[in-house]
Amino acid sequence: MLNKLNEKCGVFGIYGHLEAARLTYLGLYSLQHRGQESAGIVTGDGQKMYPHLGMGLVSDIFSRDTLDKLPGYLAIGHNRYSTTGMSFLKNAQPLLIKYAKGQMAIAHNGNLTNTDMIRARLEKEGSIFQSTSDTEVILHLIAKANGVPLAEAVVKSLQQVKGAYSLLLSTPDTLIAARDPFGVRPLCLGKLGEAYVLASETCALDLINAKYIRDIEPGELLIITDKGLKSIKFAHEKKSAMCIFEFIYFSRPDSYIFGRNVHLVRREYGKQLARETRIKADLVIPVPDSANSAAVGYAEESGIPFETGLIRNHYIGRTFIEPDQQIRDFGAKIKYNPVREVLKNKKVVVIDDSIVRGTTSRKLVKMLYAAGAKQVHLCISSPPIIGPCFYGIDTPDKKELIASNNTVKQIKKYLGVDSLHYLSLEGLLKATNISAANFCCACFTDDYPIK
Amino acid sequence: MLNKLNEKCGVFGIYGHLEAARLTYLGLYSLQHRGQESAGIVTGDGQKMYPHLGMGLVSDIFSRDTLDKLPGYLAIGHNRYSTTGMSFLKNAQPLLIKYAKGQMAIAHNGNLTNTDMIRARLEKEGSIFQSTSDTEVILHLIAKANGVPLAEAVVKSLQQVKGAYSLLLSTPDTLIAARDPFGVRPLCLGKLGEAYVLASETCALDLINAKYIRDIEPGELLIITDKGLKSIKFAHEKKSAMCIFEFIYFSRPDSYIFGRNVHLVRREYGKQLARETRIKADLVIPVPDSANSAAVGYAEESGIPFETGLIRNHYIGRTFIEPDQQIRDFGAKIKYNPVREVLKNKKVVVIDDSIVRGTTSRKLVKMLYAAGAKQVHLCISSPPIIGPCFYGIDTPDKKELIASNNTVKQIKKYLGVDSLHYLSLEGLLKATNISAANFCCACFTDDYPIK
Amino acid sequence: MLNKLNEKCGVFGIYGHLEAARLTYLGLYSLQHRGQESAGIVTGDGQKMYPHLGMGLVSDIFSRDTLDKLPGYLAIGHNRYSTTGMSFLKNAQPLLIKYAKGQMAIAHNGNLTNTDMIRARLEKEGSIFQSTSDTEVILHLIAKANGVPLAEAVVKSLQQVKGAYSLLLSTPDTLIAARDPFGVRPLCLGKLGEAYVLASETCALDLINAKYIRDIEPGELLIITDKGLKSIKFAHEKKSAMCIFEFIYFSRPDSYIFGRNVHLVRREYGKQLARETRIKADLVIPVPDSANSAAVGYAEESGIPFETGLIRNHYIGRTFIEPDQQIRDFGAKIKYNPVREVLKNKKVVVIDDSIVRGTTSRKLVKMLYAAGAKQVHLCISSPPIIGPCFYGIDTPDKKELIASNNTVKQIKKYLGVDSLHYLSLEGLLKATNISAANFCCACFTDDYPIK
Amino acid sequence: MLNKLNEKCGVFGIYGHLEAARLTYLGLYSLQHRGQESAGIVTGDGQKMYPHLGMGLVSDIFSRDTLDKLPGYLAIGHNRYSTTGMSFLKNAQPLLIKYAKGQMAIAHNGNLTNTDMIRARLEKEGSIFQSTSDTEVILHLIAKANGVPLAEAVVKSLQQVKGAYSLLLSTPDTLIAARDPFGVRPLCLGKLGEAYVLASETCALDLINAKYIRDIEPGELLIITDKGLKSIKFAHEKKSAMCIFEFIYFSRPDSYIFGRNVHLVRREYGKQLARETRIKADLVIPVPDSANSAAVGYAEESGIPFETGLIRNHYIGRTFIEPDQQIRDFGAKIKYNPVREVLKNKKVVVIDDSIVRGTTSRKLVKMLYAAGAKQVHLCISSPPIIGPCFYGIDTPDKKELIASNNTVKQIKKYLGVDSLHYLSLEGLLKATNISAANFCCACFTDDYPIK
Repeated sequence: MLNKLNEKCGVFGIYGHLEAARLTYLGLYSLQHRGQESAGIVTGDGQKMYPHLGMGLVSDIFSRDTLDKLPGYLAIGHNRYSTTGMSFLKNAQPLLIKYAKGQMAIAHNGNLTNTDMIRARLEKEGSIFQSTSDTEVILHLIAKANGVPLAEAVVKSLQQVKGAYSLLLSTPDTLIAARDPFGVRPLCLGKLGEAYVLASETCALDLINAKYIRDIEPGELLIITDKGLKSIKFAHEKKSAMCIFEFIYFSRPDSYIFGRNVHLVRREYGKQLARETRIKADLVIPVPDSANSAAVGYAEESGIPFETGLIRNHYIGRTFIEPDQQIRDFGAKIKYNPVREVLKNKKVVVIDDSIVRGTTSRKLVKMLYAAGAKQVHLCISSPPIIGPCFYGIDTPDKKELIASNNTVKQIKKYLGVDSLHYLSLEGLLKATNISAANFCCACFTDDYPIK
Repeated sequence: MLNKLNEKCGVFGIYGHLEAARLTYLGLYSLQHRGQESAGIVTGDGQKMYPHLGMGLVSDIFSRDTLDKLPGYLAIGHNRYSTTGMSFLKNAQPLLIKYAKGQMAIAHNGNLTNTDMIRARLEKEGSIFQSTSDTEVILHLIAKANGVPLAEAVVKSLQQVKGAYSLLLSTPDTLIAARDPFGVRPLCLGKLGEAYVLASETCALDLINAKYIRDIEPGELLIITDKGLKSIKFAHEKKSAMCIFEFIYFSRPDSYIFGRNVHLVRREYGKQLARETRIKADLVIPVPDSANSAAVGYAEESGIPFETGLIRNHYIGRTFIEPDQQIRDFGAKIKYNPVREVLKNKKVVVIDDSIVRGTTSRKLVKMLYAAGAKQVHLCISSPPIIGPCFYGIDTPDKKELIASNNTVKQIKKYLGVDSLHYLSLEGLLKATNISAANFCCACFTDDYPIK
Repeated sequence: MLNKLNEKCGVFGIYGHLEAARLTYLGLYSLQHRGQESAGIVTGDGQKMYPHLGMGLVSDIFSRDTLDKLPGYLAIGHNRYSTTGMSFLKNAQPLLIKYAKGQMAIAHNGNLTNTDMIRARLEKEGSIFQSTSDTEVILHLIAKANGVPLAEAVVKSLQQVKGAYSLLLSTPDTLIAARDPFGVRPLCLGKLGEAYVLASETCALDLINAKYIRDIEPGELLIITDKGLKSIKFAHEKKSAMCIFEFIYFSRPDSYIFGRNVHLVRREYGKQLARETRIKADLVIPVPDSANSAAVGYAEESGIPFETGLIRNHYIGRTFIEPDQQIRDFGAKIKYNPVREVLKNKKVVVIDDSIVRGTTSRKLVKMLYAAGAKQVHLCISSPPIIGPCFYGIDTPDKKELIASNNTVKQIKKYLGVDSLHYLSLEGLLKATNISAANFCCACFTDDYPIK
Repeated sequence: MLNKLNEKCGVFGIYGHLEAARLTYLGLYSLQHRGQESAGIVTGDGQKMYPHLGMGLVSDIFSRDTLDKLPGYLAIGHNRYSTTGMSFLKNAQPLLIKYAKGQMAIAHNGNLTNTDMIRARLEKEGSIFQSTSDTEVILHLIAKANGVPLAEAVVKSLQQVKGAYSLLLSTPDTLIAARDPFGVRPLCLGKLGEAYVLASETCALDLINAKYIRDIEPGELLIITDKGLKSIKFAHEKKSAMCIFEFIYFSRPDSYIFGRNVHLVRREYGKQLARETRIKADLVIPVPDSANSAAVGYAEESGIPFETGLIRNHYIGRTFIEPDQQIRDFGAKIKYNPVREVLKNKKVVVIDDSIVRGTTSRKLVKMLYAAGAKQVHLCISSPPIIGPCFYGIDTPDKKELIASNNTVKQIKKYLGVDSLHYLSLEGLLKATNISAANFCCACFTDDYPIK
């Protein structure tokens, strides 16, 4: 539980712009898909830092008034994704603390794997922790490395932690970005006029009209001050371990991740899936919105018409209350409703991005048959998930993963589909078109690149 | 301004179910696209009525606790769409009042055209109004018709008002549904076990597994009590005037409106548009999500591949704060971001459902060219809007409607596109495939069926 | 229950001052003892009216921001005292409505006795009520009297209602004050520079440095516009029926009520009580703070030293949570704690203003003995209460009034005191030193002046 | 500023009672006069700790619901008094932290004088502080003393800090109380059945019917576990330095502080003041409520009648908004209003407890003359304040203290009174009737007992 608090988040930072808070607000808004539990912005004006954090969506947390109370020329922001039932304001980021040298804030996307040990050691030495998050450990390590300059203290600290992190760190006058040696999570650099911008995905640069410069490299630390940009390479790994799920599901289709456009990669997954499956059907429909791109590719490659067979309700709020017992198979219905006229008496290829536990897919399949589909062929644009993720994606325990304990045939039976197809790992990597050696595919292979 | 307060809303009612509040909650959730400003539920247990109303999304307004405080076997609910800058809780519906015979609640979708006069008359007689809404006028008329039975009082009141209304009215033990003589807004009847269900669109029936029975007819009053259903025809018009915009834009694609599936009708609009235009292009892309169905139809008919060229951000909250001056053409960007890799050097057919003022379309077009599109051909799946709507759709004054003051050629120039095409009125009506005489197309023709 | 909603409140109004809202805020603050449940201010700027209402204390309801949003040169305000367990914002005053002639607001101190009948009649004619308060009836009567000028409409309305009222009524440009024909509740007029001020008690004038001019007379209507002050005498009663409890308990000691200073009157009650009792004791102590003045008088007249034997906790908030079962006789302890060192082995005269049910007095007496008092002589500065109040003081039903069903001897036994003494009615009236004929003493005599 | 954050607070603790949270709530309620800015309770059930803190009054912060969420058999609570304009929830106490050995909470009344140095040292070693309060330093020192048992760690930590503290410290199963070696602030021990109770003042014991056992001694540490009570004397000073201001102003009159009843001591101050002054006057009036006891003594000793000349408004909330410019000398009026009838043409002795800056006294005096007083003789029941307090009472800088820079004659002139009298230091100590050597009177003598 403890180790899952930092998973799947969005970070944004800017240095050198008088509307730092407002632009960070926009950046977080465009990264909202990476986390909807809480969000926060901390700005700096050279002397002091100013925080505002809250629960819920970026557009609900910040008002004109709250943004006006965040002066300064630099800012970092964070969207948090919650993987647990409990969600509290005190888990919101950026974390802002006071230590020997003054104020410091941090925003972290990723997941560390050795913090329990470090934390126990620090507590033994008398450190007091405010939260249960991995992220705070990094701050304590920096605070401990007291005699040395900030950049050096950060490097020393990062060299002690293991795991995935794309993080932004700020003092009143300095902005620091860092990416773990394996480059698990994305982090890119842009420019808006003279100002430097940092973001989890390029779609955040687009919204504010900033120009994409380059990705932060694995093992790179970037220090931005009034003297400009300075880059330090604090770790060298032979190969990177970029998370393939950023392509499959997580990033926005309009973003460029690890140098490639996400929509095009997903469309290619769909094409490859069409090549691997060869189904005779009347229609191809996506499970919206995450499988839209792959379905377009599948339709194009297979020649089977693309259709809209499921309508998604986008108005799901923070909590949803189900009726007590009257309605079965309710879960999927809250999100999707079939278009009966489209499905009636049709052989349908349904494209989805992945299957985790299988429970939602099963309800969806039932819904499609109930709406009149004659055949349902479920095609998944990624291989079976057999291992949990330790670096920041919220996958459940191995025993809850349906593909970890069942053959494709068994899963097909459980889901009740006419046929079930997964994209092959080779197909996935080929379609991604970046050297396969650079990816972490542990969830498909059980082979973890970071120990 | 006053006349616009009731426009474009969703209503839901249920009679004879012990989970009346919870099911109404679900119904409103599925009708959320019809209004996101405020929502409310009023239940009745035979003796008393219980209200809960709030600002914002259904899922944020209601909690398990608030639903538990809404006992009873009947309920009516309302989603409000705000057409004005001002939004207040006191404008939320259902309106609940106390009059000589006890409590009464009302939920109204539509817009009345002669309430100013009636209101002035009532005020002259000493009536005090709580709100500025049309809806309250109906309540006052019913309260005035004091000596007669409820159904008769409602009929008398409705015979005095003019305009569009699909409304639900409730006392502690009776549920009444009524639709104006022209049937401008939709309203359907369903059954869930023994319980009767009423909803603006059929998608609300789907979510709770209720069975669609029939539409409430124009000029029909339906009274539901413990003695069952009673129908009264309180007005006879030679032809109806159903709002064609429910098909073009307003209803959910999975709903059946006026007897036809919305997605299929829209896809047909796309096909018809393809037949009328004959453009040579590389791609067809929709402006998501309202033009998705038409784009699928256009692609199918034209043979030009369907693609995803614009990504929509669904996380826009209640208020959005723009940066002060730094970023131009911001409006469209908040909602859409282009997928550059898809558009680069391509001749693109863009499908949108309508053009109102033209300002947003212009920004969108600019964005597409900036993303690399070689040609942009804008195809609208409806005719030019030349007249404002008086019956409940939020269209601006005539002078603000771009097509009211400009030729298609002038609009094309203003938008800066390579070509601009509107669906013809004949094409629209043909594709809708219901007798053209039954529709209100006043916004395209300036010919208003209701005086 | 319905009839008790307007009891025991404070009203304040001002006309002709650019800080109308702020001064009303101060006025309400000084009248806070008359009601702590809710408060509100409505201002007018000649064109429009601006309301702000809330639950709780004046100082918590209004902030600099909310006051800044109340522009205008006239204002009325209200402090509400709740006599029922239920307290809702919708019962807060001033009530602001819209009727044929525009906006109108009302703030009411008192209690009407014939509103049920009027209300039934109005509802029969089709009127719709927002609340269950007496006050709204007056507004409806005014709205009904539509053809005539405002002042006349108000007069006509007041001539229909019976009971006690000191009320302020405002439109965007006119301030009206009225007091019932018997003058049950106080209402005074003052001036601050050129501005006119109206208040329940003179202590509100003191706080803002306004000069006391005179009391509004029973049956007088005062209309304040830009043409100045106009007085109408709308009713003539042979004698007034001012509430004697304003002196005994309700008003602030520094106020002048019905022309006399409350503290001096109460001190005189204490002196008269000393003359009537002749107890041998070591100390005189008040039940703070309401009996402080009478205790000072008693000590002075009797020559027995005044002491502080009970400490009152002033920090009781809106709700107080008692421990479940562990602590007996808790009620009185929350409010008072004895000073043991003072009471130990002493014969103590305890002065209180009145006994209603007797339950609190009994706990208090027990507490004093437990703290070491050798003798407790309870002296009440008013006669036994034998009848409930229908005009606005919250007294319970006759059967709950201990003196209505018990002799003084029986009460003495119930309370467990060494002796119990009430001030005689003759003594009370003599000490008040205003013609006895002018007072309502129905709670002591069961003889009600208003039918 | 930093050093003033912990001043003037109330603490309460209980061990061994199943209603620990509820009783702590009551204890804090009775200690509300020691601080109204914020309050909090942390309970422990042997395994875990449960916090609830909020801004404002105890009765507003806690509801039945919040108390129900505080299970456990031990609890500590805190009322915070704010000495600065800034007030934040994060400064509320008890502070609850997690360190190597688990959870720990602290509630502190007093003020440390050497924390800046310790803090700097700890930060240099890498500690991160959450707040700017002195109190957190103690927690860090305990967390650092990691190898040793809790009691020993606390002793070690307290031996490093200097200043005043009466503090309660709790883990999930242990309650610790400690008082500084000089015993500056009070702290007493009581029993309620088998449960142990700790409180700043005895009035908190009274409310819950707990029995007073004894004061915690200066330099004593008390550890309460399931094995019972254990006392450790961790420091020995030759003489104590109890704050004389607890008698003069701060404690509640019904409390026993340092073994003596506060009301009686204050009454004695009044008597002594009467002996020292010998004024010819018509009345003695207190500035309510803090000078009530002294005024009673003065009246008794001098034979001049006690009267009520000023009425205090107890309804001042958290913030009070003054009118912009219209009203002069407003400060005192918000709190007090004169009873003119009492003061008119009278020679008045006014008793107040102390004069700090003199500005409020001056306004008060002006108010009394304006109300008609012929003579005003101001008698202060303590000596002139010439030095600031470093141990926890909020006195301003030396230069702001009127008596530090002016003779009594000059002050008299500034205040505009007919005569001004201070109680002599000898009189004060004699009337207190505890060995003078045990008190800190530094504010009167500039001689500070703690370096």
